[in-house]
Amino acid sequence: MTRLTAERLDELFRGTLALVAEHGFERITMDQVAEATSSSKATLYRQWGSKSTLVVEALRHLAVSDEVPSDTGSLRSDLAALVTGRSTRIEAEADLIGAVLHAVKSDEELRNACRDRVVSALRERLQTVVERAVRRGEVAADNPALGFADLVLIAPFVLRSVLEDEHVEDDYLLGYLDAVLVPTLTHTPA
Amino acid sequence: MTRLTAERLDELFRGTLALVAEHGFERITMDQVAEATSSSKATLYRQWGSKSTLVVEALRHLAVSDEVPSDTGSLRSDLAALVTGRSTRIEAEADLIGAVLHAVKSDEELRNACRDRVVSALRERLQTVVERAVRRGEVAADNPALGFADLVLIAPFVLRSVLEDEHVEDDYLLGYLDAVLVPTLTHTPA
Repeated sequence: MTRLTAERLDELFRGTLALVAEHGFERITMDQVAEATSSSKATLYRQWGSKSTLVVEALRHLAVSDEVPSDTGSLRSDLAALVTGRSTRIEAEADLIGAVLHAVKSDEELRNACRDRVVSALRERLQTVVERAVRRGEVAADNPALGFADLVLIAPFVLRSVLEDEHVEDDYLLGYLDAVLVPTLTHTPA
Repeated sequence: MTRLTAERLDELFRGTLALVAEHGFERITMDQVAEATSSSKATLYRQWGSKSTLVVEALRHLAVSDEVPSDTGSLRSDLAALVTGRSTRIEAEADLIGAVLHAVKSDEELRNACRDRVVSALRERLQTVVERAVRRGEVAADNPALGFADLVLIAPFVLRSVLEDEHVEDDYLLGYLDAVLVPTLTHTPA
């Protein structure tokens, strides 16, 4: 469907989200997006149909890889592959999160699209990785932490920038996996 | 300093935060707060001096108890005492979080006040509880999870309402403590 190169798409999504972070979802127009990303408005509408679809797809691109997580042989390395090496980083992540939370508040369609396209996709990827670990015997199928795994996975992305004004770097995420997520999931409940 | 009863104060803070959640920090006025909380504007200014101070104190009140966490004998019960039984709950927590993130974006003073008064206070309480657990031998002093404990503690408050549109109930928090926070902290690093 898309004729844009992966690189161009990444650039376009990053530019879109930077605008959302700076001005808020409601205030940006497709004209502004077209100008900031050196695209034509016709292209944007042809590809995404609406501002909200474009923004949701950009968020999905930022948050979730389109590929099924590869089976690297262990929970730890599967999770590492899942959370690190995302090429799309934007400045002002905390601003973006604030802008999105603000926008979804009064826009139910946008809220549902974010849950369906972004949060669900992230959950699916995580579930694939966790189910594999259960089959390998690394994770107990009845570990109550499984019910919180998505929240624990998402937490550093949302909270690192909000609490500390710091970007979420790969090193930080790997430290978090080793200290928090992996022990929580592999721990044998008493 | 304050002559308001605890109950009245709780009501006033709750009313203030409900307004922030609904309209956003920038748009509300002290007149609106006075009306919504059946207070006089003179009282509000005498007690808090400014809208931002009032809102930050309301957030602190919502998030953090003023008391030093009691020593209940175990990490699990200390943490439970820390996170449950907060009397102040407001509707639309996700809206409030969005509104605050949005407001602190362009208001450095508000951002610093939130970090200094709310986030730091929560960190201090947690540190007290964790240090006790280290002394009891429940937590290894070199557990790398200690560096992430604040983030893991705060995560359900911020993310439960955002991801699932659900209130953070005490039962949910206790399940989270047992499945995630306590195992993470008491786990012995390899």
